[in-house]
Amino acid sequence: MIDLQRRGLVMAAGGVLAAGAVNPGWAASTGRKLGYAIVGLGGYGLGRIIPQFQNCQHSRLVALVSGDPAKARKVAQEYGVPERGIYSYSDFDRIRDNPDIDIVYICLPVFMHAEYTIRAAQAGKHVMCEKPMAINPAECEQMIAACRKAGKKLMIGYRSRFEPHNVEAIRLARAGAIGNLRYFRSEHGFVVGDANTWRMKKAQSGGGSMMDIGIYALQAARYMTGEEPVAVFAKETTNRSDPRFREVEDMIDFQLEFPSGAIGSCMSMYSANRNQFVLMGDKGRIELEPATAYSGQRMWVGQERSDKTEVKPPPGPYANQWVGQLDHMAQCVMQNREPLVPGEEGLRDIRIIEAVYRSAREQKRIVVQS
Amino acid sequence: MIDLQRRGLVMAAGGVLAAGAVNPGWAASTGRKLGYAIVGLGGYGLGRIIPQFQNCQHSRLVALVSGDPAKARKVAQEYGVPERGIYSYSDFDRIRDNPDIDIVYICLPVFMHAEYTIRAAQAGKHVMCEKPMAINPAECEQMIAACRKAGKKLMIGYRSRFEPHNVEAIRLARAGAIGNLRYFRSEHGFVVGDANTWRMKKAQSGGGSMMDIGIYALQAARYMTGEEPVAVFAKETTNRSDPRFREVEDMIDFQLEFPSGAIGSCMSMYSANRNQFVLMGDKGRIELEPATAYSGQRMWVGQERSDKTEVKPPPGPYANQWVGQLDHMAQCVMQNREPLVPGEEGLRDIRIIEAVYRSAREQKRIVVQS
Repeated sequence: MIDLQRRGLVMAAGGVLAAGAVNPGWAASTGRKLGYAIVGLGGYGLGRIIPQFQNCQHSRLVALVSGDPAKARKVAQEYGVPERGIYSYSDFDRIRDNPDIDIVYICLPVFMHAEYTIRAAQAGKHVMCEKPMAINPAECEQMIAACRKAGKKLMIGYRSRFEPHNVEAIRLARAGAIGNLRYFRSEHGFVVGDANTWRMKKAQSGGGSMMDIGIYALQAARYMTGEEPVAVFAKETTNRSDPRFREVEDMIDFQLEFPSGAIGSCMSMYSANRNQFVLMGDKGRIELEPATAYSGQRMWVGQERSDKTEVKPPPGPYANQWVGQLDHMAQCVMQNREPLVPGEEGLRDIRIIEAVYRSAREQKRIVVQS
Repeated sequence: MIDLQRRGLVMAAGGVLAAGAVNPGWAASTGRKLGYAIVGLGGYGLGRIIPQFQNCQHSRLVALVSGDPAKARKVAQEYGVPERGIYSYSDFDRIRDNPDIDIVYICLPVFMHAEYTIRAAQAGKHVMCEKPMAINPAECEQMIAACRKAGKKLMIGYRSRFEPHNVEAIRLARAGAIGNLRYFRSEHGFVVGDANTWRMKKAQSGGGSMMDIGIYALQAARYMTGEEPVAVFAKETTNRSDPRFREVEDMIDFQLEFPSGAIGSCMSMYSANRNQFVLMGDKGRIELEPATAYSGQRMWVGQERSDKTEVKPPPGPYANQWVGQLDHMAQCVMQNREPLVPGEEGLRDIRIIEAVYRSAREQKRIVVQS
């Protein structure tokens, strides 16, 4: 009986909104594929992004930018990138003369995001930039201005926005499946083993777990509630005698205050593996765990007085979240539409993170600048 | 391999401390049973406490105090309480003349706790009082003073301290099974259906979910970390158009700042059923769900890089948490020892709750008075 009611709830909600209202549908493809240059052949660019082009309908790999010529040549051979598509950081600006390159995807340590986004825009290319967008809001604003001046699009690599469980969770929440939203809770963390990675150097990363993994909780708090926080309160705890945490924070617990009265409560950490969120409404709740991992997402929907039921989302239009991200940007460029997660979205997170850090430092509630 | 390691961890921890160090063992019983008077025949006193005397070794039911003589007579008959053990609120003070009564257990709405605790002490009886201890710290102080003046013991009904999963979780945490403690998280809530219960009248309850169910999260944050919070930050969200929440709060998210740097992050609510906590250390975590329910507790212990394993606690010395609470108090009286959860413990929670409410009102970090 309860199960039927719950299924009824979910199905009824399914009828209210078309999926496209949340993750916009697009006009039929032109069949054309836009060319991407991947900047940075680190673990993410090389291990996660480059292998996905074979699954894309609108994106292809045409160039590589690396400080290691031998590595670049090897990757180029493996993925069929022509010799003319191999660049170093010193001759990066020559991408201007390569008509194969439509979009430059910045997969560099955070402190290099602004410089290479701006140089890419000045070279007449559209830009996809990994999150966190940059070290601070001022850099984000410069990146947005540079792309605007060049008449080029800028998108931030928030892959979860293209992951089917997250897309379906947003749809259910907006459709009223759990009533009025009251409370969002998320824990995000992973264990950093290497004290010498750029992530642990404040000048290169901009900060610790909050910039790197806490940002997933923050993003999810915003896309799940559909609201912008007006104020934050945060408390940090870091074992400074741990060699990993000489410069950046380990754990930070932050509370978000939304205009409707809904509360966001999040924990970010570099010392434990956690990846989940719960959105609670006055009629039920939606849980994801893992929520924003590379794979394995699971989702449950429940009413507050009863158990929860696992819900499988409908398959999305893309093979996976990375393909969604790459093809969405390519479609935006081809159809001259604004990306779902433009530079302004990345700036918004960095502004809130700045307020989180300030709250933790000053130990008071900080109003977020809008 | 991981499982063995994990078991090793738990077993190694088990060797460090005898269980008695956390839940003190007692000298052999005298075989004598002390007599309890139950004040208030509501759902908790009648439904939860009274049926447990048959399982006790040191406690017996000898008196009832009720405003409903017919109900009192019926309960007295059912549980073998003699006619001379039946009292109304107007002749309550006559308990002084009943030598069968050693301990008075106050199971009344919160606003009556102080008055009946003080009257019981003045009648020469030891007192067990339900939690939350009273409406405000001043009342708690008066209760403590009255019992001290009368030379009588005062214990607060924190049943979870006698529940085997909680006792074992405390033992593991103190034994270092999960390393240095970093973070405690708890959600506690239940759905209040009746807008007209005394719980929803601020003058009778002292507050909303925080006083009633959030206090379990707060207590657990303190007994699991073994630390006292030095400051709090809290944010409330209540739908004031809901007839249940005209006077008291629904949801309140509160953060506790511990001297070691550990963080407590808790959510209390009257609009959803939640009952869990997680204690995270730098070597692993302990989870309970449900954590403080009447029954059904489950516990998991895990290292942060691996899965978690369900751990069954050793059976405690008592049949269940209520029996533990009743017999512990009886043993304290017989052996002239201080209860594990004396009045000062109840006062401590009420002082912190006062700081939580003030933080939510003033929207700033509030230092807890020590």
